[in-house]
Amino acid sequence: MEKILTFDQMWRELAPLGRSVGGGYLRLPFTSVERECLAWFEEQAHSRGMRLESDGWNTIAWWDEGLETRRVPRRYSTTGSRGPGAVLTGSHLDSVRDGGGYDGALGVVSAFAAIDLLRESAVTPTRPLGVAVFAAKEASRFDSPCLGSRLATGAIEWAEVEGLRDPAGARLGDVAPPPTPGLLAGVDTFVELHLEQGRELTSIAEPVGFGIGSWAHGCFRFEFTGEADDSGADMDQRHDPMLSYAMTALAANKQARLSPQSSARATFGRIEAEPNATTAVPDRVVAWLDARTRNQEDLPVLVAEIQRLAAERAHRDGTTVRVTTVSATQAVAFDSALTTRLAAGRPLIATVAGHDAGVLARAGITTTMLLTRNPTGISHSPQETAELSDCVAGVEALADALTGLVS
Amino acid sequence: MEKILTFDQMWRELAPLGRSVGGGYLRLPFTSVERECLAWFEEQAHSRGMRLESDGWNTIAWWDEGLETRRVPRRYSTTGSRGPGAVLTGSHLDSVRDGGGYDGALGVVSAFAAIDLLRESAVTPTRPLGVAVFAAKEASRFDSPCLGSRLATGAIEWAEVEGLRDPAGARLGDVAPPPTPGLLAGVDTFVELHLEQGRELTSIAEPVGFGIGSWAHGCFRFEFTGEADDSGADMDQRHDPMLSYAMTALAANKQARLSPQSSARATFGRIEAEPNATTAVPDRVVAWLDARTRNQEDLPVLVAEIQRLAAERAHRDGTTVRVTTVSATQAVAFDSALTTRLAAGRPLIATVAGHDAGVLARAGITTTMLLTRNPTGISHSPQETAELSDCVAGVEALADALTGLVS
Repeated sequence: MEKILTFDQMWRELAPLGRSVGGGYLRLPFTSVERECLAWFEEQAHSRGMRLESDGWNTIAWWDEGLETRRVPRRYSTTGSRGPGAVLTGSHLDSVRDGGGYDGALGVVSAFAAIDLLRESAVTPTRPLGVAVFAAKEASRFDSPCLGSRLATGAIEWAEVEGLRDPAGARLGDVAPPPTPGLLAGVDTFVELHLEQGRELTSIAEPVGFGIGSWAHGCFRFEFTGEADDSGADMDQRHDPMLSYAMTALAANKQARLSPQSSARATFGRIEAEPNATTAVPDRVVAWLDARTRNQEDLPVLVAEIQRLAAERAHRDGTTVRVTTVSATQAVAFDSALTTRLAAGRPLIATVAGHDAGVLARAGITTTMLLTRNPTGISHSPQETAELSDCVAGVEALADALTGLVS
Repeated sequence: MEKILTFDQMWRELAPLGRSVGGGYLRLPFTSVERECLAWFEEQAHSRGMRLESDGWNTIAWWDEGLETRRVPRRYSTTGSRGPGAVLTGSHLDSVRDGGGYDGALGVVSAFAAIDLLRESAVTPTRPLGVAVFAAKEASRFDSPCLGSRLATGAIEWAEVEGLRDPAGARLGDVAPPPTPGLLAGVDTFVELHLEQGRELTSIAEPVGFGIGSWAHGCFRFEFTGEADDSGADMDQRHDPMLSYAMTALAANKQARLSPQSSARATFGRIEAEPNATTAVPDRVVAWLDARTRNQEDLPVLVAEIQRLAAERAHRDGTTVRVTTVSATQAVAFDSALTTRLAAGRPLIATVAGHDAGVLARAGITTTMLLTRNPTGISHSPQETAELSDCVAGVEALADALTGLVS
């Protein structure tokens, strides 16, 4: 068996993969960088004598030697016929464009380090324990988040997504295989460790917390159509969709700010103008609204209000706006009994960002999350970071949680 | 000699080049489509027995057979030592991205048709008469307008522009040769016919008018820098440059609308966000302001006010804004004696758009413009258009003007 790397050593091995000169990361699904990350993952599994399983998308390194627990496909299992099933931890290794190094990767590195702590403490699992890498978690390439976990849980079917195209026009079905069913068969419990995407742990001075659930989340495409013209055209004769968009971006921000107890988010982070020329009034501006609310029922209300304000401005500009739903994810509460038990007094916080944990929870798997402090509070950016001591605290908390689950 | 085509025949030959299925045109400088357009131009010249001259960028078809007028390089000529020099008409054949078919092309086709009318009327030029195609008039590829005419007149030097890059990263100096000096040597007078980019002729029900000058025009790059974050980040903890941009776009529009007698234009038609991802607050938004004013002195005032409002909003958003001047073109009045004489009672209007005529006027060439009615008033769009009867009226007005100049 090869040498087993420490947290710090694993981190240093993984860190250069997909990093740009500016410090940002580009680890897009089904690219050579992602394969390098996966090769790193496979090495970690091999050095620990863990068995690899893959559905062509997601990969799990299992520590289940000598265990006879039959892992039955969930969708075919009969309630009550099984004993406690497998426990999964892990996260994802892909990144957004120019993202940070911690989002996803921290959960995978921490998972191996936690297993090493279990072994040092001579814990012998009575249930299979796996470290998962979910593929295509970020919407960075195919514009749709959590593809790997949603395919693995049956939340979406291959036929629904194989036609998705990346910005260069490549079809998902041409760069990735259809996933083999059954990878999550017999998985009872999932604990995902993730970098906090906010400053709650910082504000209460705690290195680690547990997640109580994730918010409702939707992506909506706003297409503003006007009339192309020369930039010399009379101001009164224009139908400029850029103005309708600009007002809508400001209105979305204002609506989210107006939400009580900071319970909503609204972001226009992506925009495409046509022809996108200095000397032309555009004829079309397409922009994507990312909207999130703590409570499920608030999401449609928020989006409807932004859409109403967009239509009002479009009417004034002589443009039109058409809104289509790109993705919609229900709010989810993680298993509160599990979370409370594992947290053992550690702080409980809600995650606004979407995670594979939310997908597995919605599929009926008992799920919770562990969050490691991020002093900048920033993520999806090279500025996301964590102190090594906080990472170690996260590993220890994860090891405690896994010990409680598998011994 | 080949068959000489009528206006209508020339138009139908040229129309398919660079036209997309949507009806828009993409005739970028130094591409194969532009070479096809130039090949069409050379055929027209050959069929009329006109002599071609090129500086590697701009091309002129000369009707100067048997004329002994010595064409002396302007920059080396001594005032008073020359008789009347050459007369030039023509325009450009390149287009903006997804532009219309008339902008530029109408001036070139009309020029050949006008020369045919002169010949039918048995006019024998006493001065060389040329039809010019100025290269890279639009800023569509290298982000800088009127490159060909500015190089030919010495308004800019090759060393200043050869490093410009197109959106794909190609360097101007690698796709185009350094221009040979002297192409405009001995040119005294330039009459450019162009599609009207506005509705003034429509509102006064006239098919053709003359230009009295063009407005001051500048392009300014606004770079808004904030902090990338996840779209789930707390609304109060963001530094979102998209909001600073959105307010600036609305402010620019408002400032231009506030100008007395509709004497200003302000347009944000081009925008780039980074990382331009649905799930990320951008860390950078770059947008280009196209600003124009009737009077030279109003341009810096307008831009300073927009910049002040941008900085005010950026301060509120915790972002920064940096403004750089990409190009600045002085307002120019065409030669009023020439314009009044050639117009012969036809309406006189100002052009807000920039033209090669403005560049030649600034270089000291006696210049005027002829404008053909555009019923939509729209240009830089597939919707720009002209009635055939108006095009013919434009050709006749140009023929009258050229007859007055060369006989």
